[in-house]
Amino acid sequence: MIVYGDIASGNCYKIKLLLSFLKRPHQWHHVDILGGECQQPEFKQLNPNGKIPLLQLASGETLSESNAILNYLAQGTSWLPEEPWLRAKVLQWQFFEQYSHEPYIAVARYIAVYLGLPDERRAEYESKQEGGHKALHVMEQQLMQSDFLVGPCATIADISLYGYTHVAAEGGFDLSGYPAIVRWLQRMTQLPDYIPMQDNEL
Amino acid sequence: MIVYGDIASGNCYKIKLLLSFLKRPHQWHHVDILGGECQQPEFKQLNPNGKIPLLQLASGETLSESNAILNYLAQGTSWLPEEPWLRAKVLQWQFFEQYSHEPYIAVARYIAVYLGLPDERRAEYESKQEGGHKALHVMEQQLMQSDFLVGPCATIADISLYGYTHVAAEGGFDLSGYPAIVRWLQRMTQLPDYIPMQDNEL
Repeated sequence: MIVYGDIASGNCYKIKLLLSFLKRPHQWHHVDILGGECQQPEFKQLNPNGKIPLLQLASGETLSESNAILNYLAQGTSWLPEEPWLRAKVLQWQFFEQYSHEPYIAVARYIAVYLGLPDERRAEYESKQEGGHKALHVMEQQLMQSDFLVGPCATIADISLYGYTHVAAEGGFDLSGYPAIVRWLQRMTQLPDYIPMQDNEL
Repeated sequence: MIVYGDIASGNCYKIKLLLSFLKRPHQWHHVDILGGECQQPEFKQLNPNGKIPLLQLASGETLSESNAILNYLAQGTSWLPEEPWLRAKVLQWQFFEQYSHEPYIAVARYIAVYLGLPDERRAEYESKQEGGHKALHVMEQQLMQSDFLVGPCATIADISLYGYTHVAAEGGFDLSGYPAIVRWLQRMTQLPDYIPMQDNEL
């Protein structure tokens, strides 16, 4: 099993974090996003959408989209409930992440951290703040009611939202107004086999 | 079972279409998006993220995110394969839809059809064309190889992508350069119990 990714990308870190929780051996193939490696013909043969992370099985078959990969790897483990309603709630949070959270919080961080907040993208960066805070507010409401997003136990929904929420400050988002999120972030780091993002530059 | 939605929204039509394929009785509660009904306190009690579609069970429990709802309703039917790899591929296409397709094709259509393409949003409308065509190109490559997105049979991945692709022209996307997509759209309309979007304004 090979994972193509960049560990400083929250979408890729999600996969690394689940694999650590599951103690699953794998090969990590670093892909240089800023160097344009995702858009090279060799990579687009593996993923026509030109994005990481990408999972490749020993058979050569590939799977893209971070949250689809999490669902595949987590099946049969405590990270993905079997019960249909809970499973649907996990997906609800993962689709929320990709549509209502990542395009604001991850993109603001990308502009600030990867691109160095250039003047020509400052307006775009600032335009991300409102949507990002709206997403954080939705998470806060849930995490005031339950320790994890889908109840009392951690699932891949938490991994999906943890990926970029725990580095939201790098995109200019002050989390001090979200005490339930802050406690949940802390709870995630205390799970057995947790690994931080920055220790895994491979 | 109540579905809150607006049938002219592709995300809501996806649910209506699957329920028709499955012949599942349900109550449809029309929500007026442009009138701001999604942002009213009554609706935000049901979905704190203020979006439709929303599924509500007889127990009162709610599920949001169109693709999560499709997964919940399709379980145990031919629309959602049991085999783990195929199931992951369905999710791959659904996450692709929400991140790489909908924000371009659906948003361009929204600006054109719902808002009447006002001058102040024309630049945004035009900026959606490149990403939309990129998504269509990725779909075309797959549909040149298989009749449906995840193999020889239709799944909820096809419903997810059909929702906005079949009205892409309303967002300014000319599909004549995508013959495999055009054939696939036709194939979808020939499935038993197919219903078009416009016949279902409830």
